[in-house]
Amino acid sequence: MAQKTWVRMVTAQTPTNIAVIKYWGKRDETLILPVNDSISVTLDPAHLCTITTVAVSPSFDQDRMWLNGKEISLSGGRYQNCLREIRARACEVEDKEKGIKIAKNDWEKLHVHVASYNNFPTAAGLASSAAGFACLVFALAKLMKAKEDNSELSAIARQGSGSACRSLFGGFVKWIMGKAEDGSDSLAVQLVDEKHWDELVIIIAVVSSRQKETSSTTGMRDSVETSLLLQHRAKEVVPKRIKQMEEAIKNRDFGSFAQLTCADSNQFHAVCLDTCPPIFYMNDTSHRQVKFLVSCQCASHSRSSSKFYMKCDDTKMVAYTFDAGPNAVLIAHNRKAATQLLQKLLFCFPPSSDADLNSYVIGDKSILKDAGIEDIKDVEALPPPPEIKDAQRCKGDVSYFICTKPGRGPGLLSDESLALLHPETGLPK
Amino acid sequence: MAQKTWVRMVTAQTPTNIAVIKYWGKRDETLILPVNDSISVTLDPAHLCTITTVAVSPSFDQDRMWLNGKEISLSGGRYQNCLREIRARACEVEDKEKGIKIAKNDWEKLHVHVASYNNFPTAAGLASSAAGFACLVFALAKLMKAKEDNSELSAIARQGSGSACRSLFGGFVKWIMGKAEDGSDSLAVQLVDEKHWDELVIIIAVVSSRQKETSSTTGMRDSVETSLLLQHRAKEVVPKRIKQMEEAIKNRDFGSFAQLTCADSNQFHAVCLDTCPPIFYMNDTSHRQVKFLVSCQCASHSRSSSKFYMKCDDTKMVAYTFDAGPNAVLIAHNRKAATQLLQKLLFCFPPSSDADLNSYVIGDKSILKDAGIEDIKDVEALPPPPEIKDAQRCKGDVSYFICTKPGRGPGLLSDESLALLHPETGLPK
Repeated sequence: MAQKTWVRMVTAQTPTNIAVIKYWGKRDETLILPVNDSISVTLDPAHLCTITTVAVSPSFDQDRMWLNGKEISLSGGRYQNCLREIRARACEVEDKEKGIKIAKNDWEKLHVHVASYNNFPTAAGLASSAAGFACLVFALAKLMKAKEDNSELSAIARQGSGSACRSLFGGFVKWIMGKAEDGSDSLAVQLVDEKHWDELVIIIAVVSSRQKETSSTTGMRDSVETSLLLQHRAKEVVPKRIKQMEEAIKNRDFGSFAQLTCADSNQFHAVCLDTCPPIFYMNDTSHRQVKFLVSCQCASHSRSSSKFYMKCDDTKMVAYTFDAGPNAVLIAHNRKAATQLLQKLLFCFPPSSDADLNSYVIGDKSILKDAGIEDIKDVEALPPPPEIKDAQRCKGDVSYFICTKPGRGPGLLSDESLALLHPETGLPK
Repeated sequence: MAQKTWVRMVTAQTPTNIAVIKYWGKRDETLILPVNDSISVTLDPAHLCTITTVAVSPSFDQDRMWLNGKEISLSGGRYQNCLREIRARACEVEDKEKGIKIAKNDWEKLHVHVASYNNFPTAAGLASSAAGFACLVFALAKLMKAKEDNSELSAIARQGSGSACRSLFGGFVKWIMGKAEDGSDSLAVQLVDEKHWDELVIIIAVVSSRQKETSSTTGMRDSVETSLLLQHRAKEVVPKRIKQMEEAIKNRDFGSFAQLTCADSNQFHAVCLDTCPPIFYMNDTSHRQVKFLVSCQCASHSRSSSKFYMKCDDTKMVAYTFDAGPNAVLIAHNRKAATQLLQKLLFCFPPSSDADLNSYVIGDKSILKDAGIEDIKDVEALPPPPEIKDAQRCKGDVSYFICTKPGRGPGLLSDESLALLHPETGLPK
């Protein structure tokens, strides 16, 4: 081992992801093995991501971690599982220039420092733990020169947070539930990369950034133990939906994609409600968002005898999905649809009086420009959406909107100025 | 037939009912045949009921109806079905004193006037149509001297509004779904009368008296056609629950009764959420009510390894159930539990500043007295419930509370002053 002075570090960026076929329920709590497959879309890391710097130095006397600038404990089983699994796959690292040589066995004795930062609210139902654990595992694997590919790494990230495994890839990703008792085949695979369906636009309505009331870990456990609908969903409903969703994605069939996405979000929240005690993630604002979308899409209802038809306008169709929180994630099938959607959203959910537009619509602001909205006066002057009868304006219901799109998978940041740890001390900058 | 001058009338009172195992989904839209059995508790008609006067006279030139003082059309299929079915069972009526004689066949030619009045908000999710159709059918049957018993009448009321069939009896009532294609065996039977379990106290939190947004007829149809969970519920879950609920009621086993009631309410709303487009009957206030009840009951949570236990205090247990609306119907297992519940409810859901207590807690006000609450100052002085951490007071969330109990079935009102139609003109008083 080299002298005590050096610090070696790596900084990685990992996207978050939003499930379009939901993961809810574990068959193994420790290994984090799910009761069904799930499929997600990876969000552009330019707008929603975790950045993690991991460092190793012989001068570190214990593993330490800082999340969003605050030191947190690494003693939890989930962190320990990830650290142990990656250390077991560490390889020899040599940097002749700096005079560093770490043998395979040295990694067991060396300690790491981890600093992680989310560019979005933690635990607000925006899958921060997914991006976080994916980034931790990816960065450690690069630091320790582990030879595993991203699917193999996903099976480690899964042991930190189930949905983290899906953040190891860009585009559309499937988490295969697997069959093996040790969880070795429960991992993520990429269905298509982010270029396959790059016209999609995603708008997230952040309804509340308060900590959510029921953690998904607790909620899932309660659902598995008490919901009489969960097993039926996992065994009978999801397998068919997974196949249909794969087809829809492959064929860029937006109508089917939207229908499946909405239906599966609804069913996930239905299972939450069927739990004892019931779990409510959607609130009145979430309900209003759904009603708003249904009104925008469904120009007319027609009924003939006992058969019910709902005539939805495919060109206006927007998929919605809600994770374990009240935020709506809306997916529009192209830029034009997204521009119209944003106009209607801003009419129905304008900012509270003291907000400025610049902080009310964040992410890809070019959609705002396309919508002809430059300042708050343009929002006030928006016409009511013609499809919505007596459209009401719910001021302040939404905290802010994030405009984004499907994005790429994890990557290393070579620019040292982006590192979150000091290159000499290995402590947060 | 006698001369043109006479009016013969009957006035009846019929209770409303609240399902503890829910009816959601029809297998036949026209005959109103359900996809599963259901069980309800009949509410004391002193607090929640429909009063209906039906009159017949040779001077009437058409069937007419007034609901809550306003004339409404009887042309709808549901009214027509009830009128037709009762007329087909009409018998000879003779009143020698008044010189009235109506032969069996005369009923086809005679017209009726109907006036109906609910002592609670119509279409606010308090089963007004149940009490309404039950009362219409019951009153017409008495007017026309039909010989059918209440179970047979329930199969007619069912064709007006499904849940109406359960309002033909007091106490606890089961609606047997039946098998016959013509619906003849889809009717209500009394499980136990109102004296069997007379210590129960029911408190209804009326959250909103606005018209509900999705009618249960439309909602049910959408659920049957789109929910992938509804059939599983109807075929696999409900049949077992019906048996367990019958046992619980027979044995006055409040723990099981409460657990089944809450779980079935949750599952009904879960199926609503699994519908496309999703149906939201519970709102943020409903969610707060459930969280409030869960906090009151569950003193502590303990977890050992992967198994989850929730330690609920049986003596504090309160059953909740929500129909197709945001109102919470709370069932306490005795007066003492109800008194404590009301104190905590009034702490957490006090009236808005301008309300007076007299109109904020209605129905059986003696529970208020037992709780030591005489005016609004007593409400303000209530201590926070010790079980609820940082209990917040949600002023104005609840419109009013109704205190009531299980009650008796339909009855005739012989006091002519209570009739809603004028004894000579047959028009609303």
